[in-house]
Amino acid sequence: IAPRKDMQFLLHDWLNVENLYRHLRGNDDVNRDLIDAILEEGAKFAENEIAPLNQSGDVGCVFDKGEVKTPKGFKEAYIKYVEGGWPSLPADESLGGQGLPNSIAVVISEIIGAANWSWSMYPGLSHGAIHTLTAHGTEDQKAKFLTKLVSGEWTGTMCLTESHCGSDLGTLRSKAEPNSDGSYNITGTKIFISAGEHDLTENIVHIVLARLPGAPQGTKGISLFIVPKYLPAADGSVGARNGVACGSIEHKMGINGSATCVINFDNAKGFLLGEPNRGLNSMFVFMNAARIGTALQGICHAEASFQGALEYARDRTAMRSLSGPKFPEKEADSIIVHPDVRRMLLTQKVFAEGGRGLCYYLGTLTDFEHSVLPAEEKAEAEELMAFLTPIAKAFLTEVGYEAANHGVQIYGGHGYIREWGMEQIVRDARIATIYEGTTGIQALDLLGRKVLMTQGKLLRLFTKKIHVFCKENAHNSAVKSLVNALSAANKEWGDVTTRIGMLAMKEREEVGGAAYDYVMYSGYVTLAFIWAQLAVVAHKKLALNDGDADFYRSKIAAAQFYFQKILPRTQMHKACIESGVESLMTLSEDQFGFY
Amino acid sequence: IAPRKDMQFLLHDWLNVENLYRHLRGNDDVNRDLIDAILEEGAKFAENEIAPLNQSGDVGCVFDKGEVKTPKGFKEAYIKYVEGGWPSLPADESLGGQGLPNSIAVVISEIIGAANWSWSMYPGLSHGAIHTLTAHGTEDQKAKFLTKLVSGEWTGTMCLTESHCGSDLGTLRSKAEPNSDGSYNITGTKIFISAGEHDLTENIVHIVLARLPGAPQGTKGISLFIVPKYLPAADGSVGARNGVACGSIEHKMGINGSATCVINFDNAKGFLLGEPNRGLNSMFVFMNAARIGTALQGICHAEASFQGALEYARDRTAMRSLSGPKFPEKEADSIIVHPDVRRMLLTQKVFAEGGRGLCYYLGTLTDFEHSVLPAEEKAEAEELMAFLTPIAKAFLTEVGYEAANHGVQIYGGHGYIREWGMEQIVRDARIATIYEGTTGIQALDLLGRKVLMTQGKLLRLFTKKIHVFCKENAHNSAVKSLVNALSAANKEWGDVTTRIGMLAMKEREEVGGAAYDYVMYSGYVTLAFIWAQLAVVAHKKLALNDGDADFYRSKIAAAQFYFQKILPRTQMHKACIESGVESLMTLSEDQFGFY
Repeated sequence: IAPRKDMQFLLHDWLNVENLYRHLRGNDDVNRDLIDAILEEGAKFAENEIAPLNQSGDVGCVFDKGEVKTPKGFKEAYIKYVEGGWPSLPADESLGGQGLPNSIAVVISEIIGAANWSWSMYPGLSHGAIHTLTAHGTEDQKAKFLTKLVSGEWTGTMCLTESHCGSDLGTLRSKAEPNSDGSYNITGTKIFISAGEHDLTENIVHIVLARLPGAPQGTKGISLFIVPKYLPAADGSVGARNGVACGSIEHKMGINGSATCVINFDNAKGFLLGEPNRGLNSMFVFMNAARIGTALQGICHAEASFQGALEYARDRTAMRSLSGPKFPEKEADSIIVHPDVRRMLLTQKVFAEGGRGLCYYLGTLTDFEHSVLPAEEKAEAEELMAFLTPIAKAFLTEVGYEAANHGVQIYGGHGYIREWGMEQIVRDARIATIYEGTTGIQALDLLGRKVLMTQGKLLRLFTKKIHVFCKENAHNSAVKSLVNALSAANKEWGDVTTRIGMLAMKEREEVGGAAYDYVMYSGYVTLAFIWAQLAVVAHKKLALNDGDADFYRSKIAAAQFYFQKILPRTQMHKACIESGVESLMTLSEDQFGFY
Repeated sequence: IAPRKDMQFLLHDWLNVENLYRHLRGNDDVNRDLIDAILEEGAKFAENEIAPLNQSGDVGCVFDKGEVKTPKGFKEAYIKYVEGGWPSLPADESLGGQGLPNSIAVVISEIIGAANWSWSMYPGLSHGAIHTLTAHGTEDQKAKFLTKLVSGEWTGTMCLTESHCGSDLGTLRSKAEPNSDGSYNITGTKIFISAGEHDLTENIVHIVLARLPGAPQGTKGISLFIVPKYLPAADGSVGARNGVACGSIEHKMGINGSATCVINFDNAKGFLLGEPNRGLNSMFVFMNAARIGTALQGICHAEASFQGALEYARDRTAMRSLSGPKFPEKEADSIIVHPDVRRMLLTQKVFAEGGRGLCYYLGTLTDFEHSVLPAEEKAEAEELMAFLTPIAKAFLTEVGYEAANHGVQIYGGHGYIREWGMEQIVRDARIATIYEGTTGIQALDLLGRKVLMTQGKLLRLFTKKIHVFCKENAHNSAVKSLVNALSAANKEWGDVTTRIGMLAMKEREEVGGAAYDYVMYSGYVTLAFIWAQLAVVAHKKLALNDGDADFYRSKIAAAQFYFQKILPRTQMHKACIESGVESLMTLSEDQFGFY
């Protein structure tokens, strides 16, 4: 069930997107009524069409002679998705899109992803192709491919990984040989291609990383190519089959409804996208967007697991409360009375709802790019996004996985049984800390590129916002303890960063040694900032007697819980950072294990 | 691969079991040569016969018309297991056992469990039945059932859980009606019965919890019954089929090779075991043993995942070390050069090897019961065991699951693919924090029953041992920093406990609010004690130039890592304990979620 109340609270009461959109777009075409109507329609679509396919889709796809059959109902739901106009929500009107803010598309992605993550990956994978084509495609390429992707008639993929290289794309080997007509012959094998082959659409547009003849070694010799499964005919319809074949699909731990394909390119006809050898740079265009998409996965699974666990915790009875029976009419108390069950539920809740806040905030930052605002305001939003994206991706997928596991734990033995659906959430969630750059890669991106390489500029941009918030609320007695704790954590964040910077000047490995703890530390402080803000808003609404008092009390209690039971994790990460890299590097490669 | 070197280091260099057994048994019949020979045979058996069935067994069991077919090869391996005399290792010679120390059986259980946890559950589940029958069976019951279980000809189960009650056995409903011949008719349905039905042996002996007519409500009205699948004939062989039927098997997240059964008892003939209405008390006999068995699961999966991840981290290449190429001859460096990969590998290593130490130490405590020692020494060992068992069960299964997840993470995308085996370890490990009493139940057992109800007596027994160790090593410069940190943590453990005790006097819910953090806190301190001891031994051996210097250096480095990167987690748990239960209890049942 899409938590509409929470979504509206975040969008309207906290982010005040109606005002923001007016400011960004220079008009009032996207107002609250429109937003709420889209949200309601999206929720209904997800709940009625997509969610019912989640558990049945776990049987997985079937691969037969190069073709992939998606689980029962996936295709019918996709047709309705296209008919409903959902793929084109944020795209430019010139491309047939609806020109709505991307931050609304983020909300819809979350609603659909929470209903059925595997299904959502088919339309989801198109985003990368759409972004790349929008930024770098020629007019002809846009006409041929982009409009079809925007309408959802075709889907797209990103073909990066090869069997020997995932994070380290510099060593990839796929080749592009120029043809006399300006096209290229692409040859190579890509693995882990989500939505690489399926039966939902008549055509699939692959965006492929490959090397031109004589290209420089490493990441500076990679180019991007458009390689469709079927070449478009002159009239734009599907033409001749291209040299693209699905070799097999993977059997995975989870997200079984999503086809993960080996795609073989055998002299497939491809079209250069953007400049030669600048492929990785062109990719950065959509990297942030894709990572926000994966950060969403963390909260989708946290929310789904929370909803399941909450229902169970209310229904299931076991033992009596330590302070005396709470449901004397029952044989035993509902397990929601037990503090340890509450601890797990509240942990799920603060990650799901706080993480949602972070993703929505990031969503609004993506809207700045296409706004009417001056360049410096756009640049600041871009910098904030560059800083927060690796935090959101790493942190929210890690804690989303934790939340999913709490759901299984609350169910006890029943959580481990497939029938109940809770273990599927864990299996589906497990991939999120790995793909689109592992937690370790995000951590290095944050600490190395975003923090140390900018001499802390991006960090200061964000901590200043926290500082201003704390100052503004310094005399707000309702949130005093939260603001004090946030202010201390904010100062400590800077100190910890300085400390790493100093260690790294002596020993470069310190960056790698501290990165994981740093990204998690940063995540906990960032989420504390979100929760403190939500508590301020909830207190205000409560004082105004405006809305559902229980809802606001729930927010305030969750914020309290976050500060008391979750934020202390920063102390563990701080201690690990401060103890330095030495204990990680002592052992030689041979000294780890003895068998 | 069974890590023989580590096992021998723990048994001989640290625990000095040869001396201990002489002391406990009053003779020298179990010497180092014998122990090492058993260990080597057990390792070979596990590696050659059991491990090869682990991945193939993941297809699961097949249920058809009340019968369960175990995965291919399981039965053949079980026959060899019985032929090898493995089931009878620790049992008394009067029962046809080999009369070896139980601590050696613990090592063999670990070796076999690490090779294939699902398979190991079939012989593993017999232990509960064996313990209960040994303690409470009549001579006739022992002759009929126990000898068959000891030899492994039959297996046993424990039938506790019903669909509406797992942790809370007080509400169970299965009934026992007395017959005129002194037997009982058992009727009821039990769920989650591991090894409840299978094709490995000709008979299965169920130990069933049920209520006698007019029995008191709650846990004081539960009795134990022996209910065999087939009633023994007069000559001891398999006789008439009893009213016991497997209704179905569960489809689970993992341990698929292990059949988890619904068992229907329909006027099945049963035999009262022990005194009427004292069933739960009789169960406590084997509860500790079963929980040590499940604690082992944590280290089995940590070890298996570590071995897989270590091999991959040495082979797989990606990017260059931040401090310059380490494998310049390769296209990229092996990922084991990266600090973050090392962090995960070392985390797996300290949990697997330190946890192994804790389990072996617990194993030696189980040997005191049947020793020649005076009653007070036996009582002390029993108290230590009572204190440490919930810590070992809760903590080692939690960190074992963490370790299993690190293995997937180190493999990156390949970790998520079934073929590579790493995700199976995660799925198999997930149940360990749930069955045999969830982490929450263990936590309450530790904090409520073992610590607060004894006014801290059991805790002091253990912290005194830590104190003595710290004092003895106060001037050992090689381990100074570890000993100082351990000493501080040990003192803090007492302080934290006192603090909870004071909070609990005002508000009983504080116990439930603190229990999880307390058991994890206790686990981290306990493992610190183990690692400090191992470091002392390793330094000694290194100084004596006795053995493989690299092995001892590995131990010392792992201990350093543990103290610098893992032990700081206590600070997070301490902060959560000290913030009290209030933030957990604020919300009413209705205020958790709003949909």
